[in-house]
Amino acid sequence: MLGRVNHIAIAVPDLAQATATYRDVLGARVSQPQALAAHGVTVVFVELENTKVELLEPLGADSPITAFLEKSPSGGMHHICYEVDDILAARDQLKASGLRVLGDGNPKIGAHGKPVLFLHPKDLNGTLVELEEV
Amino acid sequence: MLGRVNHIAIAVPDLAQATATYRDVLGARVSQPQALAAHGVTVVFVELENTKVELLEPLGADSPITAFLEKSPSGGMHHICYEVDDILAARDQLKASGLRVLGDGNPKIGAHGKPVLFLHPKDLNGTLVELEEV
Repeated sequence: MLGRVNHIAIAVPDLAQATATYRDVLGARVSQPQALAAHGVTVVFVELENTKVELLEPLGADSPITAFLEKSPSGGMHHICYEVDDILAARDQLKASGLRVLGDGNPKIGAHGKPVLFLHPKDLNGTLVELEEV
Repeated sequence: MLGRVNHIAIAVPDLAQATATYRDVLGARVSQPQALAAHGVTVVFVELENTKVELLEPLGADSPITAFLEKSPSGGMHHICYEVDDILAARDQLKASGLRVLGDGNPKIGAHGKPVLFLHPKDLNGTLVELEEV
């Protein structure tokens, strides 16, 4: 079911500073920041040879990463996003195996304009997993 | 400097159970477990199309992930490993930029028989970064 790792997301308190570190110190190619109001985050993608790192900064009062940064003020690894061919088929199969889907269970449109879902980290060894249909 | 993402590591309290979840529920290909006494972990690699997830279970009394699992008993994302061409050149360049290398600063031999180093998570937005020379 799992395809490519689309990205690994890292929550950061200061997106400009984190972007500069990846670009100037680690020598990676970085995207322009992209504000995703519906997801409550501003994102920058660090483009690596085989996948991407997504740097996430809170956007707005109800950002889903605010609580994460309160617990880990300097930031940290937030989730892994895997590509799937058919997100509804994947969702139904995982739910039948007992995994919980976050929110109302319906895909939202993610940073790449594609449908995404999140799986409960308690069902996957403390790891928040995003599925993206590609 | 950063090349491919070699793997994303996830610490787990029960390697057999986590391996079964990735294989049977998420439908991924998984390796045999590999005990790495020098690193204090037993690892299983989840083989994805473009990179790997490394499942880590503590091995021995002085495992470096025991403290991590005490804080996060169900497990969690532990580190990201990036490939570099020349680990000593990368180390010296990063140290000159103010990043701290863990341990005595000399590479050890990692899970793939290649030299590895870890960078201090406080210098990289709370993310533990491994560099592996390939």
